[in-house]
Amino acid sequence: MRSIERERGYVLTLEMTEKDVRNKQLILRDYVSGFPKESDFDVTSNSTIKLKLDDDNSKVVLVKNLFLAADPHLRALMKKSADNLSPLFGYGVAKVVDSRHPDYEEGDFVWGITGWEEYSIITSPEHMFKIQHTDDIPLSYYTGILGMPGLTAYAGFFEVSAPKKGECMFISAAAGGVGQLVGQFAKLMGCYVVGSAGSKEKVDLLKNKFGFDEAFNYKEEHDLDAALKRYFPQGIDIYFELVGGKILDAVLLNMRVHGRIAVCGMISQYTREEHEAVTNTTCLISKRIRMQGLNVVDYYHLYPKFLEILLPQIRQGKISCVEDIVEGLENGAGALIRVFSGHNIGKQCATAETPRSLDLHSIHHDISLQPQASGGWVLHVLPLRVVHPVITIASRAISPSNAERGRNMNPPSPPPLCRLLLLLLLLLFLPLSPLAFSTNSYDSNGFGDERQKRFNGFGHKRDMGRPKGHGCERISGD
Amino acid sequence: MRSIERERGYVLTLEMTEKDVRNKQLILRDYVSGFPKESDFDVTSNSTIKLKLDDDNSKVVLVKNLFLAADPHLRALMKKSADNLSPLFGYGVAKVVDSRHPDYEEGDFVWGITGWEEYSIITSPEHMFKIQHTDDIPLSYYTGILGMPGLTAYAGFFEVSAPKKGECMFISAAAGGVGQLVGQFAKLMGCYVVGSAGSKEKVDLLKNKFGFDEAFNYKEEHDLDAALKRYFPQGIDIYFELVGGKILDAVLLNMRVHGRIAVCGMISQYTREEHEAVTNTTCLISKRIRMQGLNVVDYYHLYPKFLEILLPQIRQGKISCVEDIVEGLENGAGALIRVFSGHNIGKQCATAETPRSLDLHSIHHDISLQPQASGGWVLHVLPLRVVHPVITIASRAISPSNAERGRNMNPPSPPPLCRLLLLLLLLLFLPLSPLAFSTNSYDSNGFGDERQKRFNGFGHKRDMGRPKGHGCERISGD
Repeated sequence: MRSIERERGYVLTLEMTEKDVRNKQLILRDYVSGFPKESDFDVTSNSTIKLKLDDDNSKVVLVKNLFLAADPHLRALMKKSADNLSPLFGYGVAKVVDSRHPDYEEGDFVWGITGWEEYSIITSPEHMFKIQHTDDIPLSYYTGILGMPGLTAYAGFFEVSAPKKGECMFISAAAGGVGQLVGQFAKLMGCYVVGSAGSKEKVDLLKNKFGFDEAFNYKEEHDLDAALKRYFPQGIDIYFELVGGKILDAVLLNMRVHGRIAVCGMISQYTREEHEAVTNTTCLISKRIRMQGLNVVDYYHLYPKFLEILLPQIRQGKISCVEDIVEGLENGAGALIRVFSGHNIGKQCATAETPRSLDLHSIHHDISLQPQASGGWVLHVLPLRVVHPVITIASRAISPSNAERGRNMNPPSPPPLCRLLLLLLLLLFLPLSPLAFSTNSYDSNGFGDERQKRFNGFGHKRDMGRPKGHGCERISGD
Repeated sequence: MRSIERERGYVLTLEMTEKDVRNKQLILRDYVSGFPKESDFDVTSNSTIKLKLDDDNSKVVLVKNLFLAADPHLRALMKKSADNLSPLFGYGVAKVVDSRHPDYEEGDFVWGITGWEEYSIITSPEHMFKIQHTDDIPLSYYTGILGMPGLTAYAGFFEVSAPKKGECMFISAAAGGVGQLVGQFAKLMGCYVVGSAGSKEKVDLLKNKFGFDEAFNYKEEHDLDAALKRYFPQGIDIYFELVGGKILDAVLLNMRVHGRIAVCGMISQYTREEHEAVTNTTCLISKRIRMQGLNVVDYYHLYPKFLEILLPQIRQGKISCVEDIVEGLENGAGALIRVFSGHNIGKQCATAETPRSLDLHSIHHDISLQPQASGGWVLHVLPLRVVHPVITIASRAISPSNAERGRNMNPPSPPPLCRLLLLLLLLLFLPLSPLAFSTNSYDSNGFGDERQKRFNGFGHKRDMGRPKGHGCERISGD
């Protein structure tokens, strides 16, 4: 059995024996330039894996991957990867299938760096976090609110930003996995919070679900400096940087003396060959600004404390989250494309499992917020692979217990011909103007009536009511 | 008597009575665009002042200015000034002539914000620092090593940069008033220190007087990234930013993980209408860099501690300094031009007094380091006002006791015709190539023998030996 040692601690097995199974993987075809596109990826089942560890596999763990996080930092791996046959790797949630490590046993749930594939061998399981799974918290949360983005938001806000009650905070890419949490932390702290995002839906979500004081669509602002002056006439005390480039440049002009900039991400720059210019760096001096780059690995030691604080807040409905989940590695490329094109709303991830079915009754709901039995919200979207801008189909909820049952329980994914037929069917029913997908407003409970009416002729109307009781609810109450 | 209240706490008196004297001032003719030039300034004696405060001048102090600091931040005042008839204002050293403030009395020496004029009324003397003057420390040091630049260097290094022994530090504009001190602090801390500057003379000074491990002339480096990789193969832990623009961009590429950038100044940007682009901002994330803008006003409370540490180090010769002093407000514009054109070496300041004489015997020494009786070094230069690149004349040493004796002891400045004749005389004796001024090397004692030989035919050779005993000596000994 030949193995390729991965820099981030897992091994991919390539050759098949009698007891091996095929291991579906999302493969990078080649280095990616600019925005990732479907043709940059491939889903293969050429690789195989034995579902039992050899005795000589000391201290490694074999996992079945459940949820894979489409995190912005993956773009860097697409640039630098020297091994374009190997699957992508990044943060994910997985279940232990076999273990040679004393800290793990079969059935444990973990999150950490794994592969975009069905099964992975984790060679450094000491870098994984064991999940104390309870039925009321979806496992997918450990790709977002309770995983890397959650800890990033927590550390970036409380450790890096040095916030004080009443301060003015701006968050870019505020509807993403990190931004939505930072804003809620800031509201809990008593800050004035404004977020920017790239669509009306996201802006409404920020204001109506996450309790931001204000939010704006940066694509509608021709003068970002003027926009910031409108929302921050007294200036910005804290900027949580997730976008970079032009927004950073405009923010620098609007920072207050002794302002802090937590530099967490610059998603607008990752897809560029030449980075955008930042020219207002002299503001760092005149305003005595502190800019601090951050990486979650420096704050792993805070995770127990973070969980201790976050879990009750989630259960009490004080902290809310929105996830954007696609089903199956076949749609993994779409999930990644959504992140870099800004079409995701909330934490984008993919299940490692093949989609079980395509529910034609809900085919024309482009995006839907769905209350979970556990009390959380899950945003279900399923991008088709050949349509751009991404057309999304709401699929059935993936409950954690389903997601981790194993691929044998699921029917195979539709063959290419079926997908083509499905696409044709979709195009027949599509409204003529693509803007029809982006001009809806949310009602106070979730997504807007307007879109509901538009699509009632095609699909069934979903229950958009917010869940009662504990869970991910909007912090501001009603 | 009409008075103009100054934003930085001093008042300029404009109308004359019998007991008033004329008050020579360096005036901004208009807003400055690009590099400051002679025609942007004027020296006038139109203003007058009474050398006794009125009884109704509550808590103000009348001072006679001695040394005026040509600090880079003055460029910002030239841009924004709404009152181009008023004199420039900035940090300076002065002697109290009359006081209505209980903390000050006639004869006290102070440093703080004052006007580029002979006499100023300080309306907020509580923002001034009283100097405990002793004969062994030149008063001019309070424009540099013991004043604002010194405290800036101290706070920027020890408070902002969080240095550790053995770390690698880069300093731009390293031969200036702040940079030369930061480098010496870093050497005392046990860091590896590299500085950049804009001439061979400055580079030699950094290596041979201030004990930098390495130094380079950025004007000779076509690829700043490659230059930094040459001097920092393992990367930079601390960057002390005094230049900005292209150098900052190259530094970002060469920072190490968890590096710190103390953003103290960006002199390359102050003279530009459009600032240079910085494009490598994503390095802030990948390397978890902290960039911190600093302004000395946030660290004024450290001044007593700073003095407690610095004064013994100066007296023991552990900390060295080089000053670049021009004589008289008539040469004040030249001093400012030198700073923004990079022709100054060391802390640039001007005396408020009119030059007492022009020593023709030393007329062709462009720059000379001269040992002080007090044990320090003073770099004497006197730019003529109409020649560019600046031609400098070494003048007699300004001892503090001379400098503060009052203008009546000095002969008047040469009238314009005399200056013209002097210029013609100078031009007759000038070497044909302007490069002759910039290709000399320093010997271990100060400036190079080569230039000495070149000018021996015209002027007398100065004693270039370093002073014995205490004072500003090179930290690394000889």
